[in-house]
Amino acid sequence: MDNPRSDRVRSVAALSKRSVRSRTGRFVVEGPQGVREAVRHAPDRVRDVYLTAEAAARYAGDVLGPAREAGLRVHEVTPEVLAAMADAEAPQGLLAVVDTPAPTLEDVLAAGPRLLVLLTNVRDPGNAGTVIRGADAAGADAVLVSDASVDVHAPKVVRSTAGSLFHLPVVTGLDVAATLTALRAAGVRSLAADGTGATALPDADLDGPHCWVMGNEAWGLPAEVRDACDDIVRVPIHGLAESLNLAMAATICLYASAGVLRSGDRPG
Amino acid sequence: MDNPRSDRVRSVAALSKRSVRSRTGRFVVEGPQGVREAVRHAPDRVRDVYLTAEAAARYAGDVLGPAREAGLRVHEVTPEVLAAMADAEAPQGLLAVVDTPAPTLEDVLAAGPRLLVLLTNVRDPGNAGTVIRGADAAGADAVLVSDASVDVHAPKVVRSTAGSLFHLPVVTGLDVAATLTALRAAGVRSLAADGTGATALPDADLDGPHCWVMGNEAWGLPAEVRDACDDIVRVPIHGLAESLNLAMAATICLYASAGVLRSGDRPG
Repeated sequence: MDNPRSDRVRSVAALSKRSVRSRTGRFVVEGPQGVREAVRHAPDRVRDVYLTAEAAARYAGDVLGPAREAGLRVHEVTPEVLAAMADAEAPQGLLAVVDTPAPTLEDVLAAGPRLLVLLTNVRDPGNAGTVIRGADAAGADAVLVSDASVDVHAPKVVRSTAGSLFHLPVVTGLDVAATLTALRAAGVRSLAADGTGATALPDADLDGPHCWVMGNEAWGLPAEVRDACDDIVRVPIHGLAESLNLAMAATICLYASAGVLRSGDRPG
Repeated sequence: MDNPRSDRVRSVAALSKRSVRSRTGRFVVEGPQGVREAVRHAPDRVRDVYLTAEAAARYAGDVLGPAREAGLRVHEVTPEVLAAMADAEAPQGLLAVVDTPAPTLEDVLAAGPRLLVLLTNVRDPGNAGTVIRGADAAGADAVLVSDASVDVHAPKVVRSTAGSLFHLPVVTGLDVAATLTALRAAGVRSLAADGTGATALPDADLDGPHCWVMGNEAWGLPAEVRDACDDIVRVPIHGLAESLNLAMAATICLYASAGVLRSGDRPG
């Protein structure tokens, strides 16, 4: 494929727009790590893999081979075509078009989760992606994302998940109040992470299934969401910093949970 | 001040270049949070504050008032002048030119530090700034930065520290091997944070003074640095993620240390 102005190239490039992703139910993952994790963990959702001859050679073992083994459609393209398809300035020679998954909150709760995180109003793509990556690393069972948050299938979010988007269910488009009600009904405690919390993280009750509830980067959680949670927990600030950024706070909370939840398991 | 092409405007704008920062010993901090923290915590190093009439009104209480009280030189400028001086697209109407501090490793060690972090080869400005912010929040005594790392006074790093650059000493230009030797002589244990570590973070000995040693974002720590440390500690990965990003790993390690070091102090 060598025409950067072909219809197919345009249709892949158009997936950088939220409206097109929403209409088609597809999104793009760029770069070797993301494509490899998609091929490895969600091959049934990979519609097409596009890569340059150089990338085909370089990632023969961890992308091209597994993609062909899984019977995926693999297309060799020129660097110009790849650049025209990609959102990133340096997509490293490959990308894949993937069906957007549609896990539901019901699916997640039916599986008996122990650790969840709910993003209520996260606007920064890097923060959203980093929380998904941190949730994966901490062994969370799923990430829940409200309808007011950034689209987790936007190119910048996908990149910053570093492949974690394919490792755990990410439920999107949720209503926050309804989600908190559903969590409670399922026996999952909701813990608002908020600097105003009376409970410091080291004193929080992290036994049993729970969900961290994270607010907006700038203004945190609205009072009605905090009040609807079972506890409000603050990450202690020991120095002069005003706060931690959202992704750091979420990761610290999730790792504190992992430490408690896993203390009965084998050493991590 | 209303001429965006004046010598003074050019000389401030030139501080976005590392060579100019290095030659002049000055850097720029942009936006209300950074300028406020500079005025509050390092007024003796603030050479000039530039702000628009709108910013002067909006930040009268937390920037303009304290700046005048501290006897600082405050200049009202047009939005065009501010935009020409600034690196950020939206500096929010104010910036300050600040003398680069020059704390030394000897100063830091002489103060009897309990918790330090050493960035050996951090290249991403956002990561470096986020680690400084996380170190501040975790109550670290200082951040040490090797000569191979990004310049912590670059605009993007300064921004991502969210003011923490003015809260704790940040020692730059260090030789890694000499620093590890100096730490040992001062009774500060060095803990390499590395995915290959045999010791999982929950099992690490975090009693007593110690310094987290962080590697490069992509390739981690070289074997000779790992081997020169007192222990190699991994943040456990519970899910399918390959790794955590550098800033997250550093923040988790620093907060684990804070939890142990502060357990004898008042609750955080």
